[in-house]
Amino acid sequence: MLTPPNKTASAGALARPLLAPLSVAIVGQSNDAAKTAGRPLKYLRQAGYAGRVYPVNGRRDTVLGERAWPSLTALPEVPEHAYIVTGTQAAVEAVQECGRLGVKVATVLADGFTEAGPAGLARVAQLREVVDRTGLRIVGPSSLGVVNLRAQVMLTANAAFDEHPLPAGRIFAASHSGGMIGALLSRGLARGIGFAGLVSVGNEVDLSLGEICAATLDDPAIEGYLLFLESLRHADALRAFALAAAQCNKPILAYKLGRSPEARELAVSHTGALAGEDDVAQAFLADCGIARADTLDGLIEGLPLLGRVPVRAPAAAAGARPPRVGVVTTTAGGATMVVDPLAVRGIGIEPPSAGTLARLAAAGIEVKPARLIDLTLAGTRYESMKAALDVLVAAPEFDLVLAVVGSSARFHPELAVKPIIACAGAAKPLAAFLVPDAPAALTALSQAGVPNFRTPEACADAIAAALRRRAPRMLDTSTRSAKHRDRTSAADGGGPDELENYGLLDRLGIARAPTIAIHADVTRAPALPFPYPVAVKAMIAGIAHKTDVGGVVLGVADDEALLAAIHQIRASVAERQPGTTVVRVLVQPMISGLGEVLIGYRVDRDVGPIVMVAAGGVFTEIYRDRALRLAPVDLATAQEMIAEVRGLTPLAGYRGLPVGDLAALAQAVVALSRLAVMDGPAIQEAEINPLIVRPAGLGVVAVDTLVKLMV
Amino acid sequence: MLTPPNKTASAGALARPLLAPLSVAIVGQSNDAAKTAGRPLKYLRQAGYAGRVYPVNGRRDTVLGERAWPSLTALPEVPEHAYIVTGTQAAVEAVQECGRLGVKVATVLADGFTEAGPAGLARVAQLREVVDRTGLRIVGPSSLGVVNLRAQVMLTANAAFDEHPLPAGRIFAASHSGGMIGALLSRGLARGIGFAGLVSVGNEVDLSLGEICAATLDDPAIEGYLLFLESLRHADALRAFALAAAQCNKPILAYKLGRSPEARELAVSHTGALAGEDDVAQAFLADCGIARADTLDGLIEGLPLLGRVPVRAPAAAAGARPPRVGVVTTTAGGATMVVDPLAVRGIGIEPPSAGTLARLAAAGIEVKPARLIDLTLAGTRYESMKAALDVLVAAPEFDLVLAVVGSSARFHPELAVKPIIACAGAAKPLAAFLVPDAPAALTALSQAGVPNFRTPEACADAIAAALRRRAPRMLDTSTRSAKHRDRTSAADGGGPDELENYGLLDRLGIARAPTIAIHADVTRAPALPFPYPVAVKAMIAGIAHKTDVGGVVLGVADDEALLAAIHQIRASVAERQPGTTVVRVLVQPMISGLGEVLIGYRVDRDVGPIVMVAAGGVFTEIYRDRALRLAPVDLATAQEMIAEVRGLTPLAGYRGLPVGDLAALAQAVVALSRLAVMDGPAIQEAEINPLIVRPAGLGVVAVDTLVKLMV
Repeated sequence: MLTPPNKTASAGALARPLLAPLSVAIVGQSNDAAKTAGRPLKYLRQAGYAGRVYPVNGRRDTVLGERAWPSLTALPEVPEHAYIVTGTQAAVEAVQECGRLGVKVATVLADGFTEAGPAGLARVAQLREVVDRTGLRIVGPSSLGVVNLRAQVMLTANAAFDEHPLPAGRIFAASHSGGMIGALLSRGLARGIGFAGLVSVGNEVDLSLGEICAATLDDPAIEGYLLFLESLRHADALRAFALAAAQCNKPILAYKLGRSPEARELAVSHTGALAGEDDVAQAFLADCGIARADTLDGLIEGLPLLGRVPVRAPAAAAGARPPRVGVVTTTAGGATMVVDPLAVRGIGIEPPSAGTLARLAAAGIEVKPARLIDLTLAGTRYESMKAALDVLVAAPEFDLVLAVVGSSARFHPELAVKPIIACAGAAKPLAAFLVPDAPAALTALSQAGVPNFRTPEACADAIAAALRRRAPRMLDTSTRSAKHRDRTSAADGGGPDELENYGLLDRLGIARAPTIAIHADVTRAPALPFPYPVAVKAMIAGIAHKTDVGGVVLGVADDEALLAAIHQIRASVAERQPGTTVVRVLVQPMISGLGEVLIGYRVDRDVGPIVMVAAGGVFTEIYRDRALRLAPVDLATAQEMIAEVRGLTPLAGYRGLPVGDLAALAQAVVALSRLAVMDGPAIQEAEINPLIVRPAGLGVVAVDTLVKLMV
Repeated sequence: MLTPPNKTASAGALARPLLAPLSVAIVGQSNDAAKTAGRPLKYLRQAGYAGRVYPVNGRRDTVLGERAWPSLTALPEVPEHAYIVTGTQAAVEAVQECGRLGVKVATVLADGFTEAGPAGLARVAQLREVVDRTGLRIVGPSSLGVVNLRAQVMLTANAAFDEHPLPAGRIFAASHSGGMIGALLSRGLARGIGFAGLVSVGNEVDLSLGEICAATLDDPAIEGYLLFLESLRHADALRAFALAAAQCNKPILAYKLGRSPEARELAVSHTGALAGEDDVAQAFLADCGIARADTLDGLIEGLPLLGRVPVRAPAAAAGARPPRVGVVTTTAGGATMVVDPLAVRGIGIEPPSAGTLARLAAAGIEVKPARLIDLTLAGTRYESMKAALDVLVAAPEFDLVLAVVGSSARFHPELAVKPIIACAGAAKPLAAFLVPDAPAALTALSQAGVPNFRTPEACADAIAAALRRRAPRMLDTSTRSAKHRDRTSAADGGGPDELENYGLLDRLGIARAPTIAIHADVTRAPALPFPYPVAVKAMIAGIAHKTDVGGVVLGVADDEALLAAIHQIRASVAERQPGTTVVRVLVQPMISGLGEVLIGYRVDRDVGPIVMVAAGGVFTEIYRDRALRLAPVDLATAQEMIAEVRGLTPLAGYRGLPVGDLAALAQAVVALSRLAVMDGPAIQEAEINPLIVRPAGLGVVAVDTLVKLMV
């Protein structure tokens, strides 16, 4: 079921004052056009904005040759949108005045808020109070502004907008980084990619990036969205926007900083946003149907292709074939530059089928049977490329056809670029990479509607992003996340004990080791309901690694050894964790299997409940070999996750090793992920480690667990 | 000791006819300038080549308005260089004629040689025969030609050279792919990067890429080399060139296709070269001091930076600090786009030291103490950027300073780009990335000699390539590789048996398990020189995985179990490998340790002897977690290799686990690598798997080996 975007009812009402106001005030407009605070008025006039503009400057009668007003209160009307370009304290006061007057949207340039410690947060509270009380909506603070190129609304202080005319396009861009709106605009211009609007969303103390984009979804002239993300702050609004955009068939392509821990740290220091782990972001964006670009050029050039590639279903059916690319080229070396980064991204190049090769031969195209359709022998001629493309765009084995043209593209586009343009109308997605510098040919391709790329890396990046994109899952996010909102995890040591955890596993239907608890002060071994050898574990709630404090003895062989093990555990825990007394121990049969897996569940601060499958043991951490998805997951998704974890390869029948019960593992992952929608105490984090995977047909068995509740 | 490049004595003699001939013939020159065979004459005339040009065309009296000659024999002089642009068979005949006449260099365009099966290889033999007999040197076949932009030598059929004037620069480019010389030229032009010359080396049946480049090393106008590699064919010549270039202080930057297996397969089908594994190539290039770019833009833009970064020593001393980058920016989001791919490449961003922060404060630059020096608070002004750069280029903690400028760079380079230019003369390497599209500012930076980059990915790529580059090791390659040349590995099943292998380990000084051999038909267990439990293994020479045929029983507890194990092994091997009878078995004590490692040695077809360290078990293959180096290696290099293998992290004191004897492991790696310089039978491949790593101080013990000899 689709959750509508937050405040959808008011999205239309927001769009006008936000992006197409009939009147604007520039509060703090400077008389010096070279200064940041001098730019908005200059840009508005340069662009020919047709609405009413009110520069506000308390110290001058005129700015840039126009009348300046002493205050917002002094204006002859209440402007729809105020861009506040003053310093921090004056900005707070201006926002308050906007609230009093009934201004609909205020965009705030100043910093000194979210990122500025307690004093900054106190200012944030002041802004929020105005929003809550008056209905004013705020963009920013730290916003370099709001631009609508079709309505000449240039409410920006970004220096890259000092240009006229700026052609309008059909892409809407939103960015956490203010500097990037200028980079997207100017780099797009250089590549013939135009924008309908661009917004620097700043600190998002009120309007979030998702809400701002959602407000534009009604606009038929906007065909897709580019997002530059520094964090997943306000993930719910982003998700709601993504789901609504999917229903409108408007693709979203995002670049997110923070693949490396170093970059995440920088993002923190800069925007005051805490960036989470990158693979959580990856899972979230994928789940929302937001394609992700790894390269800046891929972001800027990728949307035209994204709009042409059909979206796949949210979770692949078992055995569904991966997406396939067919490549035709006049230069094998140049084409291989794209194939390499495509393969690194998991997108394989398919050789043409026998039928396709036969049709190529029938069309007079001589090629060797290879993955690449190399026209070297056929020659760089219009007829060769056209005939080859005609065959390829009709070949059922390809999801996308990539044409790579060599040196002729620079001065002789009539040879191998023009036939690509002639195929622009094909139903099959078609993309082009030109190996030499060939700006005129790139422009011709763009004008014909053929997605094209300046570098092999951006080409591979965009193709992979487009082919991997899936429709968003229509999760009921309100049910999923309601109980998790604004709660924090229990302090360390909190949470249920392991016997209680086993009760939870029983309720979820996850098999676990038979277990009895016995008092640690027994002097005679009790009769066990299962044979020796057994494992003995201290019952200490909330300790993640019982082995680290000597709390586990494995392979206990008989009654005598059992008593010795209990004694050893008590002594060891008392020594290594002073103050902790082991009152009871758990005894379980030794469970053997083909391998060990970690499956986990936790509520991420930004994106809510997620589920994880990882290789067990130290390799989980060393190789970061794990698959993440938003919870809950279905069986097909759980199977996908298992296939993604390389360390589980040996369990899938590797080099003749026995096959593990991966079906049962998938069932267990699905069951664990149900915590996201379960009633009862809210669970912050749950981990089964290890989950023993037995041979196919014999199931999986949990032998240790850790659960943390929210408080 | 430095091995001189092959044929160094003749390098000077080669350079003239190859790159600056006083007379050229175009054999097969067409009258149609639009055809491939019509281009060379057109380009030569367009460029204003001052030498004598002889078009040869057997069917016409004139071509493109010039007199055509019926044959090479008919020319009034013997041309120094002939570019043969005919079809395949005519090209063979033309080469033979060149040989007869005493032409010095022939460049051959036609394909149909190395990549064309037995008939093609027969033609290769014909060409080689001419070379050997007459001293003619051949470029190609499949060569798109030889270009010298300073001498207007345009012996090329590449369509991207149809341009005049083409400014000459100071970079020499050589490419396995003919198409790429046009891409490098045109993309370089667009970025203000100029070339002295470009050569499409083709199939290298005579002159290899390394020899061609080496012939230009005397030229003081050439400052560095760009290589586009599809394989490591003729690695010895490439290495010899790289070592000589290092002595001339001329940097080499290479792009090599084939990071993915898919791309390597394409390279094979295209050029007839067998491409090896990419990490062998990585190890080889690093060992030769050749920097490697991952991106096309990084290749084209990277050399100016490479030339300014001092080269590190071949192997890092233990504890040597990794290279460090300091970053100053007017836009944190834009700068982080570079930090992210830098961090992914293992290059960390260093926060300024307390001293540097103090000097920044003294210069009036207000920044938060963070990894990035973010001038947002200080403002985008000339004075801020200049003062910050002055402090940073003098700060000892940085090996390189990167300046990232935001939107102002597009229309106001005087604010934050000009101060970078003002620091161009600093001793510290300095690089610039401009976040918006800002071609004029990029040009200004280039003209001032500040390395600059159009994309964040190319910037990170080039910085990482430059900082990771090391001086080549001055191995004595003749000793190292003489015995390996042109030999092939023994057929499967060849090679010494395991006892003989242990003798080899003893000679190398690598500890191994005490071992006795006993006949498999014993009926009474012999007295063992070590206690039970023991391991029992079939003695079958040349079987890589004895366990796969049931040839190993571990943990044998007593005499009775020993006899049973021998019986089981005989039966199992007989069943799973019909025809093989187990005559003897080996018995060893069970050796336990903290972990298992694979160390290996093999002679790669292209690059010669290499040594490998890998995590043991199935994870070696699953994670491809291994370190490779050219053999022999010294102790510091062995330590580096061990540190690179992530799966060995637990042995280095991970989360409180006991520490393994990594010093002994490093010694064993050094010892195994000595096979490369050892006398005796030539060893194709040797593997110790597992090598048991015992606790620190207790050494390592080899418990299984495999050795293949050359035949």
